[in-house]
Amino acid sequence: MAKSRYEYVKHFESDPPLLPNTFLMVRIDGRAFTKFTAAHKFQKPNDARALRLMNDAGTACMNEFQDMVLAFGQSDEYSFVFKKTCNLWARRPSKILSAVVSYFSTVYAMQWSKYMVDEETGKPQEILYPPQFDGRIVCYPSLKNIRDYMSWRQADCHINNLFNTCFWTLVNLGKMTNKDAEKELSGTVSKEKNELLFSRFNINYNNENPMFRKGSVLFRQIVQPKEKPKQPEQIDSEKQPQKISPPRQRYAVVTTHIDVIGDEFWNNPECPVQDSDGAGKR
Amino acid sequence: MAKSRYEYVKHFESDPPLLPNTFLMVRIDGRAFTKFTAAHKFQKPNDARALRLMNDAGTACMNEFQDMVLAFGQSDEYSFVFKKTCNLWARRPSKILSAVVSYFSTVYAMQWSKYMVDEETGKPQEILYPPQFDGRIVCYPSLKNIRDYMSWRQADCHINNLFNTCFWTLVNLGKMTNKDAEKELSGTVSKEKNELLFSRFNINYNNENPMFRKGSVLFRQIVQPKEKPKQPEQIDSEKQPQKISPPRQRYAVVTTHIDVIGDEFWNNPECPVQDSDGAGKR
Amino acid sequence: MAKSRYEYVKHFESDPPLLPNTFLMVRIDGRAFTKFTAAHKFQKPNDARALRLMNDAGTACMNEFQDMVLAFGQSDEYSFVFKKTCNLWARRPSKILSAVVSYFSTVYAMQWSKYMVDEETGKPQEILYPPQFDGRIVCYPSLKNIRDYMSWRQADCHINNLFNTCFWTLVNLGKMTNKDAEKELSGTVSKEKNELLFSRFNINYNNENPMFRKGSVLFRQIVQPKEKPKQPEQIDSEKQPQKISPPRQRYAVVTTHIDVIGDEFWNNPECPVQDSDGAGKR
Amino acid sequence: MAKSRYEYVKHFESDPPLLPNTFLMVRIDGRAFTKFTAAHKFQKPNDARALRLMNDAGTACMNEFQDMVLAFGQSDEYSFVFKKTCNLWARRPSKILSAVVSYFSTVYAMQWSKYMVDEETGKPQEILYPPQFDGRIVCYPSLKNIRDYMSWRQADCHINNLFNTCFWTLVNLGKMTNKDAEKELSGTVSKEKNELLFSRFNINYNNENPMFRKGSVLFRQIVQPKEKPKQPEQIDSEKQPQKISPPRQRYAVVTTHIDVIGDEFWNNPECPVQDSDGAGKR
Ligand SMILES: Nc1nc2c(ncn2[C@H]2C[C@H](O)[C@@H](COP(=O)(O)OP(=O)(O)OP(=O)(O)O)O2)c(=O)[nH]1
Ligand SMILES: Nc1nc2c(ncn2[C@H]2C[C@H](O)[C@@H](COP(=O)(O)OP(=O)(O)OP(=O)(O)O)O2)c(=O)[nH]1
Ligand SMILES: Nc1nc2c(ncn2[C@H]2C[C@H](O)[C@@H](COP(=O)(O)OP(=O)(O)OP(=O)(O)O)O2)c(=O)[nH]1
Ligand SMILES: Nc1nc2c(ncn2[C@H]2C[C@H](O)[C@@H](COP(=O)(O)OP(=O)(O)OP(=O)(O)O)O2)c(=O)[nH]1
Ligand SMILES: O=P(O)(O)OP(=O)(O)OP(=O)(O)O
Ligand SMILES: O=P(O)(O)OP(=O)(O)OP(=O)(O)O
Ligand SMILES: O=P(O)(O)OP(=O)(O)OP(=O)(O)O
Ligand SMILES: O=P(O)(O)OP(=O)(O)OP(=O)(O)O
Ligand SMILES: [Mg+2]
Ligand SMILES: [Mg+2]
Ligand SMILES: [Mg+2]
Ligand SMILES: [Mg+2]
Ligand SMILES: [Mg+2]
Ligand SMILES: [Mg+2]
Ligand SMILES: [Mg+2]
Ligand SMILES: [Mg+2]
Ligand SMILES: [Mg+2]
Ligand SMILES: [Mg+2]
Ligand SMILES: [Mg+2]
Ligand SMILES: [Mg+2]
Repeated sequence: MAKSRYEYVKHFESDPPLLPNTFLMVRIDGRAFTKFTAAHKFQKPNDARALRLMNDAGTACMNEFQDMVLAFGQSDEYSFVFKKTCNLWARRPSKILSAVVSYFSTVYAMQWSKYMVDEETGKPQEILYPPQFDGRIVCYPSLKNIRDYMSWRQADCHINNLFNTCFWTLVNLGKMTNKDAEKELSGTVSKEKNELLFSRFNINYNNENPMFRKGSVLFRQIVQPKEKPKQPEQIDSEKQPQKISPPRQRYAVVTTHIDVIGDEFWNNPECPVQDSDGAGKR
Repeated sequence: MAKSRYEYVKHFESDPPLLPNTFLMVRIDGRAFTKFTAAHKFQKPNDARALRLMNDAGTACMNEFQDMVLAFGQSDEYSFVFKKTCNLWARRPSKILSAVVSYFSTVYAMQWSKYMVDEETGKPQEILYPPQFDGRIVCYPSLKNIRDYMSWRQADCHINNLFNTCFWTLVNLGKMTNKDAEKELSGTVSKEKNELLFSRFNINYNNENPMFRKGSVLFRQIVQPKEKPKQPEQIDSEKQPQKISPPRQRYAVVTTHIDVIGDEFWNNPECPVQDSDGAGKR
Repeated sequence: MAKSRYEYVKHFESDPPLLPNTFLMVRIDGRAFTKFTAAHKFQKPNDARALRLMNDAGTACMNEFQDMVLAFGQSDEYSFVFKKTCNLWARRPSKILSAVVSYFSTVYAMQWSKYMVDEETGKPQEILYPPQFDGRIVCYPSLKNIRDYMSWRQADCHINNLFNTCFWTLVNLGKMTNKDAEKELSGTVSKEKNELLFSRFNINYNNENPMFRKGSVLFRQIVQPKEKPKQPEQIDSEKQPQKISPPRQRYAVVTTHIDVIGDEFWNNPECPVQDSDGAGKR
Repeated sequence: MAKSRYEYVKHFESDPPLLPNTFLMVRIDGRAFTKFTAAHKFQKPNDARALRLMNDAGTACMNEFQDMVLAFGQSDEYSFVFKKTCNLWARRPSKILSAVVSYFSTVYAMQWSKYMVDEETGKPQEILYPPQFDGRIVCYPSLKNIRDYMSWRQADCHINNLFNTCFWTLVNLGKMTNKDAEKELSGTVSKEKNELLFSRFNINYNNENPMFRKGSVLFRQIVQPKEKPKQPEQIDSEKQPQKISPPRQRYAVVTTHIDVIGDEFWNNPECPVQDSDGAGKR
């Protein structure tokens, strides 16, 4: 039973490192969530509870993987951006991808009952079967590319949500059939959809829940240390005088619904995504 | 907010198909389970409850992914073998890998409380934090390679378990310190370890739990259809006489602890792993 | 000018080994040879001189790369099959591919004037500009796959050559315009093309040059050692008696035009392509 | 002989595109040129004829592949940099790599007799066997990376050439044995080597052939159009008056031996390597 005779099979493994000096992006997407959300009667078009559950899983990943500098979530998907200098597992793609997908998945499964509470009964809704997420990992060479990536996802969120908001307003408030609502919206541009909501239902789309309109943008932010650092006089006078190190800055992951398409986020010198080598170390 | 301006970023994705006509093997391994098993006070050296939980997750994967023909589990790892003709997601590695790892992970998390029951109190043990698994996907061109792969993992299981059994017997029954037990075993071969157990503790290693000694081997087996197929006379006589199709064979995933190093498993014409193209279709 | 500051750029290189235990196949194809053959007034549809030049370059590669067991050439392309156990440059694809393409290319360029001799003047034809070949390297897991690969190329050769033979016969002997010849052949099957040649031009396609019909198949064959091994009595009697080692078998690359689609070539126990590990060592 | 039965083997090919928006770099290196240069009695340590032959092949490549913006040659190697926006063969690595290596190789072989002329007899030296080059293709995400790459190669050239110059001076002028020269130089830094040349042999290293010291740097430069564009009055007055397009700028590849380690080359706004998307279009 000499193990060594068989060990040659290990050489069939292949996981070549991802190109250095590029941003890494892992995107996770719920597998067959059309069915999963229907089976679990997710609210339409957006189930705020489910989105908060996704954000919880996203935040857990940010806390677990320190090289992640930015994340974006919407619908059944989450994208995570790793800084350029990331050297996690020497940038082996399978390792990074599988660990992130796995961790996101178990947090989602385990936190389900915290978020998916029936509003009427106040009881957690049963999870009928284990959810599943697929994942991919992609290299982006430039800050422009990663910014365009984020814009792509947020524009996708906007377009889908505007459509869905109109559609379900026509159906729920407008008492239309699904088919008629579909027809009504077919071929309309954004502006027309906005007007439809406002003129016919007195809904100002911009007042809708920003989490629905913009998706969720996660990043680390400095939090004020709760305790002041010890002052010199507090230090036992018999001991050697000590240099007082400045309070170590601490970061916490914040969940926002800010715009990442315009310049503001990216032009901010505190922007969590930095192009320069060695930057974005948070 | 035209999404199309940003869509070019999709072209940075790359997930080239795995080589056709090769067995695909996905191996999952618990990340930092040394810590996880300690934190959750897993029984030493083997926690049968935890292994059964792993087997449950392994079985769920076999049922979810029909192209899996064989699986092997031990310790914090599980290997899944896909038939050569597998064309799941056109053999895109990231898709397959992430979906399997994700599903295994959520089943593990969700079934935890079913298996990890405190023997004394009868109550499920709390899970302290979300577990995480890494994964890899490997191509094996020949049946010989995949057989050697299985032998590699089972030999690994054997070697580790024989050592661990001796170690914990010396510590628990022999009242040795960990250090002394380590020393005692250092440099011994399998035969000597077997004798140590037998001569000093009257333990026949071969009588130990086969799940510990051999790991768990999963595959599909024909199950007898519960209801007999309808007989001709039962068919409504006024209708046209019908050909009676033989009862469709049904398969169920079985959990065994058989040997996969010797010839028997592989020489069986019913062996679930088949080399010939188009075979192994179960 | 410390070189070490810059050496990090070497880590951007990536050339992961090709899957072990698979046949490697390198196919080379002339780049823009439609233009190159026209510029150099290659005979139509086949220029035997140019094909012999290709065969010379193919043979040189077989002699240079000992792990090549089989090669096939036709038109402006050459395919080289490496045995499964090939470990040249640890199976690094860029290394193997580039070296083979480079060597083939320089042999082609340097041997040009030996083959491309003007039949009338007996003088070598000038080469107007440096030719260029592209290449690719592909893994084939099974003997069946590599056999089918060879059949694919030989069938391609047959189909193109039968068409071209008919086309140029209609044009040259039948005095048709290119357009009319094209039209005449459009939609015809092999059998009809054979009949056309025979009934109208009394040409039996099977008597055409096998190099044109079947392409060129290269492999190593045992050659008889020219000198007999020294006999015992010839050995200087004062020296120690010696064991006579059998004459070391020597191989030479042969250029044939045999069929590789039928069974004969592959069922021959001396077939240069062997599936078994460790076989095909020539 | 239906070709279609075999065509499935084409699906085993895999040549996934290189990451977009990165510089591509192809480096070619003579295979076993230690032997090749010895067999052909290359002058030591530098054979200017051979380097010019390499530069000719490098220039031919720059002219053939329009997306190359910079090249660097030294010893038996050549590096070619493609602009970031290069979309040659949709960035398929095997295609690009093999075509460049092949073309470089055939130019080298065909131009040999033009450069490798015996200085005494004036006759071209015979090429004894076909040379061979290996190649690799690497992505570099940033301008900084590609600059560091160039510095790496030029620093390598400098270090090797300074050593070789000292070594052969000690041997040829200093009448030392190879062994003694080796010993003499062992452990010396650049400054000491410079001094050795100057104090003992009155050689100012900086006056040595820049092609030897710096290698060869190729790029495109605007060349003045030889003919003036036609003036309006020259145009036939009976014809319609025409807009006069400015003379189309023409580029020619220049061979220089400039420094690419310092800032000057890179800070020049006309630098042939540009980071901005859409730039470096030459
Ligand atoms: N009712 C409801 N449905 C949602 C919500 N978020 C996501 N979904 C549904 C809408 C879509 O059917 C689905 C997400 O679309 P995908 O393109 O990811 O499709 P799906 O997951 O079914 O297939 P896939 O496996 O990703 O190809 O999830 C929500 O908050 N409420
Ligand atoms: N007590 C106990 N420990 C177990 C059992 N099964 C696995 N383990 C522990 C033993 C090892 O420390 C660990 C598995 O070894 P690994 O090589 O996978 O190490 P680990 O997961 O810590 O690190 P990794 O992230 O995989 O590199 O899990 C069990 O049934 N009982
Ligand atoms: N006249 C003549 N032409 C030949 C001979 N062998 C090959 N050719 C020509 C016929 C085709 O136009 C061309 C080979 O076809 P390919 O598909 O390889 O096309 P080509 O090399 O032009 O383009 P490529 O760069 O390979 O995509 O070479 C020959 O012996 N005589
Ligand atoms: N005499 C002489 N030798 C040269 C000249 N240029 C290059 N060489 C020789 C010096 C080295 O032995 C060799 C280049 O070094 P490499 O590291 O490329 O080694 P080589 O090509 O032998 O092996 P390789 O196949 O590249 O691993 O070529 C030259 O101008 N004159
Ligand atoms: O999943 P979709 O439809 O959004 O599109 P995709 O994710 O690009 O497709 P795939 O999941 O097959 O990569
Ligand atoms: O995890 P190990 O220690 O069993 O060894 P490995 O899995 O081959 O190493 P890695 O997880 O780094 O691929
Ligand atoms: O070159 P063709 O047309 O025979 O087809 P191919 O070789 O498969 O195409 P490509 O050269 O682009 O890989
Ligand atoms: O060829 P060397 O020795 O300069 O080093 P290398 O090119 O990095 O090694 P390899 O040719 O094996 O990639
Ligand atoms: Mg998808
Ligand atoms: Mg989905
Ligand atoms: Mg989705
Ligand atoms: Mg591991
Ligand atoms: Mg583990
Ligand atoms: Mg493990
Ligand atoms: Mg082609
Ligand atoms: Mg061609
Ligand atoms: Mg061709
Ligand atoms: Mg090298
Ligand atoms: Mg070399
Ligand atoms: Mg070299």
